Amino acid sequence: MDDDSLRRGKPTNHKVFGEDIAVLTTDALIALAVEKMATSTSLGVSPERVLRAVVEMAKAVRTEGLVAGQAADLSGEGMSLEEDRARLEHLEFIHIHKTAALLEAATVTGAIMGGGSDGEIERLRKYARCVGLMFQVVDDVLDVTKSSDELGKTAGKDLIASKLTYPKVMGVEKSREYADELNREAREHLHAFDSAKVAPLLSLADYIVNRQN
Amino acid sequence: MDDDSLRRGKPTNHKVFGEDIAVLTTDALIALAVEKMATSTSLGVSPERVLRAVVEMAKAVRTEGLVAGQAADLSGEGMSLEEDRARLEHLEFIHIHKTAALLEAATVTGAIMGGGSDGEIERLRKYARCVGLMFQVVDDVLDVTKSSDELGKTAGKDLIASKLTYPKVMGVEKSREYADELNREAREHLHAFDSAKVAPLLSLADYIVNRQN
Repeated sequence: MDDDSLRRGKPTNHKVFGEDIAVLTTDALIALAVEKMATSTSLGVSPERVLRAVVEMAKAVRTEGLVAGQAADLSGEGMSLEEDRARLEHLEFIHIHKTAALLEAATVTGAIMGGGSDGEIERLRKYARCVGLMFQVVDDVLDVTKSSDELGKTAGKDLIASKLTYPKVMGVEKSREYADELNREAREHLHAFDSAKVAPLLSLADYIVNRQN
Repeated sequence: MDDDSLRRGKPTNHKVFGEDIAVLTTDALIALAVEKMATSTSLGVSPERVLRAVVEMAKAVRTEGLVAGQAADLSGEGMSLEEDRARLEHLEFIHIHKTAALLEAATVTGAIMGGGSDGEIERLRKYARCVGLMFQVVDDVLDVTKSSDELGKTAGKDLIASKLTYPKVMGVEKSREYADELNREAREHLHAFDSAKVAPLLSLADYIVNRQN
């Protein structure tokens, strides 16, 4: 792989192998992840905690998680939502269930398996939800403010696909402010933790809000 | 629903809602099943047994299970396998991983959660694998020997799709004999159990081998 393809990224699974194999790959990866988790008692995690983590992951995927978000996304394409509030609600529903649910599961399962208290787990859940939503707000802003070359992917494709985005609902400036607000909120949920221990989570949030591609 | 539509069955999910929603539905159902299993400690099953059952289900789906079978099925469409042995091996690989792996998971997870010994679990696994394969052999035979009206679905569609089937590889008569042999073998794996307790499993096997649609 040369420098240019590294910078631009590689073509996605469904472009190279077709949609059918791409779908099968996701099913296999989810199953492999569940298996990996379910056998992690060998690392000294109690079966009760492992089961609780498995349930968290299943919830992130099922009809109140990723699947709900994707179904809403599909049903909303080309949908005309005249009122700003209705548009924003539809948009947040999609991203809370798609992007944020997965970030939440990744964070919370770690907290559960690592022995976190109920309070710690819930604070980390709120942090992850803010960061997940923030990721999507930033993504939407970059799509309308950067060139394809800067992004390393096609810019403006949300506009072409007549997709609902944050800049479309609230404008670019308000979207940027909203991302900053989500970053502040995410950081607040980590206040009660040892600052040295949560440093990587704080810089992850900063990285996401400041990324340029 | 009138009598006729009951007999013929209802149109499948992907016909009514589209392929995208059908795929999402399967993801949601797998996640819901995992969640259901992972929370069944509330029914008095030990966390260790529940985790073992979750691992069984994950294995049935992942790269050595259902996904492997479906990928082989997709890659084999239109493939010309000249030699009978190679054709049969390809066919058995698909069905052992697709149909049989799911029947195996359904049977074995029940045995694990119900408190079966290792020996009992493995005997039930072998029974299920035979029944799963037998289901597919019978299905292929019915496709070439029955009319669409008798089947309640389109007959002869495997021929049209130039799909590899048991009758194509070994002929109709040998396929029927193979189904009977699988039924005998399935029954043998249940010999060591209390005959009253395994009666439903024996009649399930008989039902599958004798079904006419």
